[in-house]
Amino acid sequence: MRTLTEYLWFNTKNKKEFINITDEIEAIVRKSQIKEGFVLVSAMHITASVFVNDEEDGIKADLLDWAEKLAPFKKEYRHHNTGESNADAHLKSILFHHEVILPVTGGRLDLGPWQQVFYGEFDGQRRKRVVIKIMGE
Amino acid sequence: MRTLTEYLWFNTKNKKEFINITDEIEAIVRKSQIKEGFVLVSAMHITASVFVNDEEDGIKADLLDWAEKLAPFKKEYRHHNTGESNADAHLKSILFHHEVILPVTGGRLDLGPWQQVFYGEFDGQRRKRVVIKIMGE
Amino acid sequence: MRTLTEYLWFNTKNKKEFINITDEIEAIVRKSQIKEGFVLVSAMHITASVFVNDEEDGIKADLLDWAEKLAPFKKEYRHHNTGESNADAHLKSILFHHEVILPVTGGRLDLGPWQQVFYGEFDGQRRKRVVIKIMGE
Repeated sequence: MRTLTEYLWFNTKNKKEFINITDEIEAIVRKSQIKEGFVLVSAMHITASVFVNDEEDGIKADLLDWAEKLAPFKKEYRHHNTGESNADAHLKSILFHHEVILPVTGGRLDLGPWQQVFYGEFDGQRRKRVVIKIMGE
Repeated sequence: MRTLTEYLWFNTKNKKEFINITDEIEAIVRKSQIKEGFVLVSAMHITASVFVNDEEDGIKADLLDWAEKLAPFKKEYRHHNTGESNADAHLKSILFHHEVILPVTGGRLDLGPWQQVFYGEFDGQRRKRVVIKIMGE
Repeated sequence: MRTLTEYLWFNTKNKKEFINITDEIEAIVRKSQIKEGFVLVSAMHITASVFVNDEEDGIKADLLDWAEKLAPFKKEYRHHNTGESNADAHLKSILFHHEVILPVTGGRLDLGPWQQVFYGEFDGQRRKRVVIKIMGE
């Protein structure tokens, strides 16, 4: 059994932004030389997410609109009594989930033809991190 | 350490449909002869999901209604500028999550008494696939 | 490869309640003596969840309000024709997801500085259970 653990850092230009990290994950899978196993991709923050969807600008804009509709920014969250202003980003992180676990088969990510992995930033413009851990043999 | 990887294919009669796949997963666990480990069950599509809930017709209808309420079909999604018409299925896939990872203990799925595993189709009536990968020993 | 499987039991005072279980999980990781691996933390019920967020009273209240807004209690769910009255808890379990998988690195949970793991009860006041399974070496 082998494992390899790496971290990706992000500092997005926008407060909310989706970044396709499929190629970075694929590179870590290759580097690990693991042929069969699982790779965990997990945001290390409570205001971000990791999810699988489509590399298409329209759906990415739709997903951001939808996140805002279901988990809107507003002043009146109780979390804001602490001086914070990002409660909506916490809710969005729950909605999109903060991690995915992906199968590795024959040394490659075993994804469907349209599946891409995204880092979902909901409170950006500062340095944040994702852990990628692969285990297998 | 052992692994076993299998694929289930679906071609649902309805556009939206939930299919109980617990028995199929249990059969793959037995076939693997793995006694202790994890089994990943992951949709290979961006318009489908895999989730755990209850084998009861009422709640399954409630879950479909709820998916439609929170992520409704409508024409005005930007994704539809590509010629697609299934943006709502992308949103529903995020809401329900596309994968689960289940514990295997003593050679069996270690689920609670009411937990059943479902493939959640949101854009069906064509061949689609789920990957099931078990790792352990 | 090693595994260790433990179960945590809960019987919440309130119908809906979030319980921070990070220390319990960390103790199981230490007990396992596993240095590199994954730990799965999964509710064994279809009306509960396990999620990662912030140990701050305001955001926990906001998350409960948000769950109620997106998946409200009401009488008219079809599931209630069975005599049950907890359909909203099923929907909330889907919204928050029933499990997380966490990385273990250097013998510790590899979490960001603000990440805490919660058991999310949506239909409590009775004995319920979470399975914690760690695999690695």
